[in-house]
Amino acid sequence: MAILVVGSVAFDSIETPSGKVEKVLGGSSTYFALAASFFTNVRVIGVVGEDFLPEHEAVMTRRGIDTRGIERAPGLTFHWTGEYKENLSEAKTLKTDLNVFADFQPKIPAVYQDSEYLFLGNIDPVLQALVRSQMPDVKLVCGDTMNLWIGHFRENLEKMLKDLDVLLINDGEAKMLSGERNMVLAAEKVMALGPKAVIIKHGEFGATSFFRGGAFPGFEQSGPFRAPALPLAEVVDPTGAGDSFAGGFYGYIASQPKLTPAVFRRALFYGGVMGSFTVEQFSTTRLETLTRAEIEDRFKLFVQLSHLEQDDEQA
Amino acid sequence: MAILVVGSVAFDSIETPSGKVEKVLGGSSTYFALAASFFTNVRVIGVVGEDFLPEHEAVMTRRGIDTRGIERAPGLTFHWTGEYKENLSEAKTLKTDLNVFADFQPKIPAVYQDSEYLFLGNIDPVLQALVRSQMPDVKLVCGDTMNLWIGHFRENLEKMLKDLDVLLINDGEAKMLSGERNMVLAAEKVMALGPKAVIIKHGEFGATSFFRGGAFPGFEQSGPFRAPALPLAEVVDPTGAGDSFAGGFYGYIASQPKLTPAVFRRALFYGGVMGSFTVEQFSTTRLETLTRAEIEDRFKLFVQLSHLEQDDEQA
Repeated sequence: MAILVVGSVAFDSIETPSGKVEKVLGGSSTYFALAASFFTNVRVIGVVGEDFLPEHEAVMTRRGIDTRGIERAPGLTFHWTGEYKENLSEAKTLKTDLNVFADFQPKIPAVYQDSEYLFLGNIDPVLQALVRSQMPDVKLVCGDTMNLWIGHFRENLEKMLKDLDVLLINDGEAKMLSGERNMVLAAEKVMALGPKAVIIKHGEFGATSFFRGGAFPGFEQSGPFRAPALPLAEVVDPTGAGDSFAGGFYGYIASQPKLTPAVFRRALFYGGVMGSFTVEQFSTTRLETLTRAEIEDRFKLFVQLSHLEQDDEQA
Repeated sequence: MAILVVGSVAFDSIETPSGKVEKVLGGSSTYFALAASFFTNVRVIGVVGEDFLPEHEAVMTRRGIDTRGIERAPGLTFHWTGEYKENLSEAKTLKTDLNVFADFQPKIPAVYQDSEYLFLGNIDPVLQALVRSQMPDVKLVCGDTMNLWIGHFRENLEKMLKDLDVLLINDGEAKMLSGERNMVLAAEKVMALGPKAVIIKHGEFGATSFFRGGAFPGFEQSGPFRAPALPLAEVVDPTGAGDSFAGGFYGYIASQPKLTPAVFRRALFYGGVMGSFTVEQFSTTRLETLTRAEIEDRFKLFVQLSHLEQDDEQA
């Protein structure tokens, strides 16, 4: 079933210990959509400028992504410049050129109205709430946020959270949003703001999901669940790992007939799988050449990494 | 089969956000032995002073631990004073009174000589190597270390590592010992120093094991394995969590007829289980009242936390 995603479509200039790239394809929607496209139909809402060329759009359309909701505006595309030093889990923003994104007013095309899953990528919570309010009948709403909105636009963020089913955040954001250092207490406080489930991402240590009592039908007995991340000898570029995680997670959920605890758990594994591919190369390069068979092979690696009993092993 | 453990038997004075205790039972051997005692026979080598009373020793002997290798020396028992501020994963040492431990020369009683498993708790690597050399025929040697020995006694530590099968360290120690920030590269460099397998502990995020190619018979295909830690709403006192992890891990291995990849994986889960109990109360209090049934219940929680398919769930 189709996912509607709103977020940024952008260019990134990035330096990491592995190298440097200038003005390459990026953006939260882009990574999310590419990752989710391996599992289900994806429709994107966003805005780009005159420097966004057919070759950039083709990266998405080649994967069957519906880009009819991406507006063209006069001016330049949103451009983020950042670097990662030795600590690859922390990006340092050097420059944020919002460009056409500064005046972005999301509009939902009529052909997108029947989308059953909504993903609110990491943008201004006012815009997230605006999109949410225009899609009152979706089956599930999942969203992302970041320290900027938590720190300086908390009231807007809290309005958005009220109407969210699943929130994805990282450890630092969970602590910031809740005021709690303890992960369990942080999750409880975040869920008290609205979300029925929260997924706290731990970078190289995976992610943990927490559920409000009876979050969804069938989840009455669901305690926390931890999905691993793959130990990688080289991370070329961490940019987009979180959005790719979200795309794999939510794409798998949207591909399944029903949201069950088992589906949610597998979705978290697929999230980790998609993130692990994205960081192997700069920009969206790895996702562009990826195949579903490679995804399934890596899913098996995640199972081997985390499961006590393993099918392909002699006892 | 029996484990011989050498390490510290000590008193601790500890302050955490949950409270404060003075001169309570502690020490790496003590936690290790108590945790391992739920799985197998344990024999302790160590030294204590005149302030170590029968009631302290009884904590171990009540759990069937063989304490005949604990020497009594004139003077006071090793006494560690430390505190944990908000960040419960980092202890701050306020005072280290080595006392009788300063002149400790481990001696292995004749009745311990047939021990098949050796655990070298976190003490001076010169002492660890001395014990190792006196037990040339053990089936498996597992050990622990800390930043002090890595930073200031590296040569001695490297001698000890040459003869070790399994090393347990935490993230910070792995980086310090290897000079690598990346976990996979750090593990490879550490194993190049001697250990056939390394277990890197991530505190609340669990632990990851890495194996040298064909580390042990049957491990030819073994990639890394990640065991979770239990998300806990309250950690009363983290002291001894690592030693309890080691005790659960190694105790389970020693209880099994053969070291297989499946046994190693379950052992890592039992390590996490034992650590999760220890932190629930100050000192060894929780381990003293613990039952094997509680251990098995928590083991199931660890499986629910990490496994895709769950027996007790409707599809």
